[in-house]
Amino acid sequence: MSNTNVFIPAGFQWSAAGAGIKHTNRDDIGLMVAKSACAASAVFTRNGFAAAPVVVSRELFKKQNGKVAGCVANSGCANAATGEQGLANAREMSQTAATQATAEGALAVCSTGVIGVQLPMEKVRQGIASAASSLASDEDAFRKFARCILTTDTHEKIASAEIHDGAKVARIIGCAKGAGMMYPRMATMLAFIATDVQIQPQLLQRMFSFAIERSLNCVTVDGDTSTNDTALIFASGASGLEIHPGAESKRDFSAKLLEVLQSLAKQLARDGEGATKLVEVVVHGGHDFDHARMVARAIANSNLVKTAIYGRDANWGRIVCAIGNADSAISPNNVTVNLGSLKLFEKGKPLPLDEESALRELSQECVRIEAELGCGRESATVWTCDLTEKYIEINGSYRT
Amino acid sequence: MSNTNVFIPAGFQWSAAGAGIKHTNRDDIGLMVAKSACAASAVFTRNGFAAAPVVVSRELFKKQNGKVAGCVANSGCANAATGEQGLANAREMSQTAATQATAEGALAVCSTGVIGVQLPMEKVRQGIASAASSLASDEDAFRKFARCILTTDTHEKIASAEIHDGAKVARIIGCAKGAGMMYPRMATMLAFIATDVQIQPQLLQRMFSFAIERSLNCVTVDGDTSTNDTALIFASGASGLEIHPGAESKRDFSAKLLEVLQSLAKQLARDGEGATKLVEVVVHGGHDFDHARMVARAIANSNLVKTAIYGRDANWGRIVCAIGNADSAISPNNVTVNLGSLKLFEKGKPLPLDEESALRELSQECVRIEAELGCGRESATVWTCDLTEKYIEINGSYRT
Repeated sequence: MSNTNVFIPAGFQWSAAGAGIKHTNRDDIGLMVAKSACAASAVFTRNGFAAAPVVVSRELFKKQNGKVAGCVANSGCANAATGEQGLANAREMSQTAATQATAEGALAVCSTGVIGVQLPMEKVRQGIASAASSLASDEDAFRKFARCILTTDTHEKIASAEIHDGAKVARIIGCAKGAGMMYPRMATMLAFIATDVQIQPQLLQRMFSFAIERSLNCVTVDGDTSTNDTALIFASGASGLEIHPGAESKRDFSAKLLEVLQSLAKQLARDGEGATKLVEVVVHGGHDFDHARMVARAIANSNLVKTAIYGRDANWGRIVCAIGNADSAISPNNVTVNLGSLKLFEKGKPLPLDEESALRELSQECVRIEAELGCGRESATVWTCDLTEKYIEINGSYRT
Repeated sequence: MSNTNVFIPAGFQWSAAGAGIKHTNRDDIGLMVAKSACAASAVFTRNGFAAAPVVVSRELFKKQNGKVAGCVANSGCANAATGEQGLANAREMSQTAATQATAEGALAVCSTGVIGVQLPMEKVRQGIASAASSLASDEDAFRKFARCILTTDTHEKIASAEIHDGAKVARIIGCAKGAGMMYPRMATMLAFIATDVQIQPQLLQRMFSFAIERSLNCVTVDGDTSTNDTALIFASGASGLEIHPGAESKRDFSAKLLEVLQSLAKQLARDGEGATKLVEVVVHGGHDFDHARMVARAIANSNLVKTAIYGRDANWGRIVCAIGNADSAISPNNVTVNLGSLKLFEKGKPLPLDEESALRELSQECVRIEAELGCGRESATVWTCDLTEKYIEINGSYRT
C-alpha cells in the first residue's frame, strides 16, 4: 500500500529506542507525546482476560476524563497474565514515561509480545529514558514509533489524511501493528492515531468508537481477540481547526478518520500471518449493521472460505453455507453471492460458472466477496486474508 | 479404533451398491431397512440452507409420527442448492427405495457429496434396485452400508454396544461419516443408528436428542455445519427388551446409546481433514451444559489452539485467550487449565512448565485439554483435531 502522502499533525512528538526487551537490536519501546494537554480517547479489547497495560490505561482514561497526553508502547512482552506485579510494572512504565518525556499529563501504556512473562523493568526504564531524549515532530520520528511496535508484522502500517475548513488545514495520521492473536506469535492489534483538530473529548470518543466499529473491528485473521488490543487517538488542537456538532468540518473529519482507520484495517488483514491475499467481504441487506457484520464475519472466519480463496476456487457453496450457519433465519431464495464482478449464486440458485473469469477475480491482490441477504437495508464490510500452509507453519512451530 | 466387538441388532437389513454417482467403482448408495414397522427418530442440520433430502426427511418424520422403516443414503452428490428438481428427486429416491426394498413404511433419505448438482436419477434408480436385491442382516452387510456413505473419510466409523435386562439382550449399532463441511470436500456428517430395543417413538426421540447434544453436536473440525447433516435412529423392537420411563434398562440404554454416539463422535474428529491427533476439550465449572460447551467449542475452534497442538506447543496462553473470548464475564482468577495430567495455569497464574512432561502429553494420540471456569457446576466435552498443512492442501487445492 502506498504511503506517498504522509501528513504530520502539529503538536506531537514521537520517538523509539532499543531497550533490549526483544533480545534483538531492533527498537522495541516508543513514545508518542502531545506538546500540551489534549483530547484523547481509547477503545480496548473485549477479551475478559485483559492484560495489565489495558487495565491501567482503562483506569487512566476514566480518571483523566479524556485528557491523556500520549502513550508509551513496547513490543517483545505483552505484560499479560502477570498478576499484581504486572499491574505495578504497567503503572510504573506509564509514570516513568510521563516524567521522562515531561508530558503535560498522564500517558497511556500499551504492550505486545510474549504473555505470562514480567517486563524487564530495568531495561524498560533505560529504554524510556533513551526514547525521551530523542523526541521529534517529523515524519521520520513517527515512522520510528510505527516500527518499534511491530512483532510478526512484515512491515509497518501507516495511513494519513488532511482535512480542510476554509483556510484551515488539519491532519490525521495513524499507525498500527498485528492482526490475529498473541503468544507465541504476538499478533496483538495496537493502533495509534494523532490529529491536530480541536475537539471535545466526548465528541472525539463518540466519533472514534463509531469509526473503530467500521474499521479495526471489521478485521479478522483467525477470529481470535487478543488480551492486549488497544486503539488510542489523541487530538492536539494545534491546527486550530475546530470540530463540533453541526459543523461542516465534522463530516469531513468523520470521513477522513474512517478512511485512515479503514486503510490501517486493510493493511493489517493483508499482512495477516501467512497471507497471500487481502479478502474484502461486503454484506448487504442486513437487518442492521451488527447483523450484516455478523454474517460478513462468519464468511471471513470460515476456514473453508479462506482456503478456497487461497486455492483460487470460486466456491460459492462454502460462502452460502457460512451464511446459513451465521443466521438460519435467512432464506436462501433471497441470497445472492458475487465474486468481484462475477455473479455466482442468485436468489437460491447457482449460476453457470465461467472458470476463466473466476480465476481472474481470484488472482487479484484483493479478492472481493459480496453477498446480498435480502433481510433489510444495512451493509457491513469485513477484511480478512486467505488461510495458507504458512499460517500453520508460523503458528504450529515449536516455541523457540 | 478397534471394532472387535460388533453387536448386530435383530430386525434389520442392510446393503450397498455402486450406482456410478461418484464416477468410481466404489459403492455409493445404500439401504438400511427394518423388517417391520419400527420406532424412529431424527436430528437434522440447523443450517438455514438445508438440502433437499433434509427437507424431505424432515417432512416424512413429521407425517409418519416417528414411524419410519429405514433409509436410503447416497454419497457423491449432496442434492443441495438444487431447487424444486432436487426436492422431487429426493422424494422419488425415498419412494423408489421403499418400493424396491418392500419396506413396511416410508424410508428417510440422506445425501452427501458435491452441492449444486442434480442427482443422476437413472443411476440412482438402478443403484437402489441393485442394493434392494442384496439386503442382508449380517455384519458384512452393515459394513458395506457404512462404507458406501464415505466421502473424504479415510475409513468407516462403526460403534456398537449390548444392553442386558435379565435374560433379555438388545444391541445398538451405529455408523457415521464425515466431519467438517462440504463441497468440494464433501464432509457432511451423517450418522445411522439401529437398535432392537422396544421403545415408543417419543421416548426414543427424547433420548436420542439428549445423546446427540453430548456426542455428535460436540464434534467440530472447522466450526462449519453442513447443509446435509443428519442423524437417524431406528428401533426394531425385535429383541423384546422394552425401554420405558422408570425402567432400570432405560438407564442402561441411555448410557450405551451415549457410548456408541460418543465413540462415533471421536472417530469423526480423529479422522478430520488433515488431522494427526484427536483433541478432547473438557470444560468444568460452567453455569450450565450449554455454557460449558460454548466455551469448550471456542477452545476447540481456535485455529491458534489447533495449530499449537499440531506443533506440540503447551500454549496455555492461546487456551486462556479462547476462554476470555468466549465469555468475557469469566474471571481469569477462577480459571485453571490442564494439559492431560499437567497443570499449566491455575487461578489466573501460569505455572512453571516442565517441557519434557508437556511434550509427552502432546505426543499422545489423544491430547486432552481440561479447563475449570469457576462459574458453576456443569461440564461439557468437545472433540476436535489439530489443524495441519494437510487441511490447507485438501481444502485449498483447485477443484478437480
